[in-house]
Amino acid sequence: MLPTITAFERSPDGGKGLARDTRVRWALEEVGQPYVVRLVSFHAMKEPAHLGLHPFGQIPTYEEGDLALFESGAIVLYIAERHAGLLPDDAHARARAITWMFAALNTVEPPILELVTAKILEGDKPWTAERLPLVADRVRQRLGQLSARLGDADWLDGTFSAGDLMMVSVLLRLRVSGILDEFPNLAAYVARGEARPAYKQAFAAQRRRLG
Amino acid sequence: MLPTITAFERSPDGGKGLARDTRVRWALEEVGQPYVVRLVSFHAMKEPAHLGLHPFGQIPTYEEGDLALFESGAIVLYIAERHAGLLPDDAHARARAITWMFAALNTVEPPILELVTAKILEGDKPWTAERLPLVADRVRQRLGQLSARLGDADWLDGTFSAGDLMMVSVLLRLRVSGILDEFPNLAAYVARGEARPAYKQAFAAQRRRLG
Repeated sequence: MLPTITAFERSPDGGKGLARDTRVRWALEEVGQPYVVRLVSFHAMKEPAHLGLHPFGQIPTYEEGDLALFESGAIVLYIAERHAGLLPDDAHARARAITWMFAALNTVEPPILELVTAKILEGDKPWTAERLPLVADRVRQRLGQLSARLGDADWLDGTFSAGDLMMVSVLLRLRVSGILDEFPNLAAYVARGEARPAYKQAFAAQRRRLG
Repeated sequence: MLPTITAFERSPDGGKGLARDTRVRWALEEVGQPYVVRLVSFHAMKEPAHLGLHPFGQIPTYEEGDLALFESGAIVLYIAERHAGLLPDDAHARARAITWMFAALNTVEPPILELVTAKILEGDKPWTAERLPLVADRVRQRLGQLSARLGDADWLDGTFSAGDLMMVSVLLRLRVSGILDEFPNLAAYVARGEARPAYKQAFAAQRRRLG
């Protein structure tokens, strides 16, 4: 039985790959696991059937037999732990790769989300023009630290891992702001992620809204 | 050899337990693992020696032999996977507990962090008085969904797990705002977490700044 994930019936970004189902699709493609996609409308996401799967009324979810998961980080980790290709075999290297997943989601993404929120939810507020540069500077601070750690390495800790998958996915949300390009090694890192065949397949699939 | 964690030499909250070392201390207490604490000053956190351990210049870190980790989520998961007491044995229940860890850190904490940031980093800005209610409403939206899911259960998914440890820790940051008390079942849930002997030990230890 193939796992089933959910994705937006109409993605708010119009297919740019920024919705969180892309992260899960990418992980499934990296490990060669076929999957089924169920599209969910904005209306249906807030209905009891979907809230039973995802208490916060979002996508993606992951169903496999009688297992149901939500949260892209948890789903990617679940996939990575059960297939070869996304986590190193060495226990210490594995723990470090998982550390980068959490760093992407809990340290790097929050200021990026705040920038996105400022534009989308507060774009019409009188303070936004003056406030946006402050928020952008908080993003730059994190990116400066990440850039210093990455240096001229290809990936964050040795070979490509679920940590890189998640960090690249988070950084991709910044491209439209221009901030990513202020850090050439991070822009090149993101481009390396996007050049992976599995990413390309995942990106194409989310554009077609299919698995 | 005991694991060593880092904590603030002087915690910005003056010992209220909101710094992220408390989450790691709590996990170590739940599983009965003694540990050593190394205190780090704000100055030293931005120096190369600490940045080598934690690229974002924060606490906590976790060192055990030649393993070095950062990110409280990753550290708690590492501890939970290697000791009994924080993750169920059943594989599906285990994956769901880990899902709640990610939900705490990537879905519930970001709007709470935004509220904290608005007060601390933008408290002196002319827009903050008008903007704070908007940010608080985004927190309420998430808490409403979480409250609906928790219902009258003691914990998020069966027995207490690392998912509850992380969710309670995240919600504790809200108490000062008064928003937590608008959701009585969540306030009671947090109180259940705080009543656990392991939490009490961790809280007392962070106040003393010791392991």
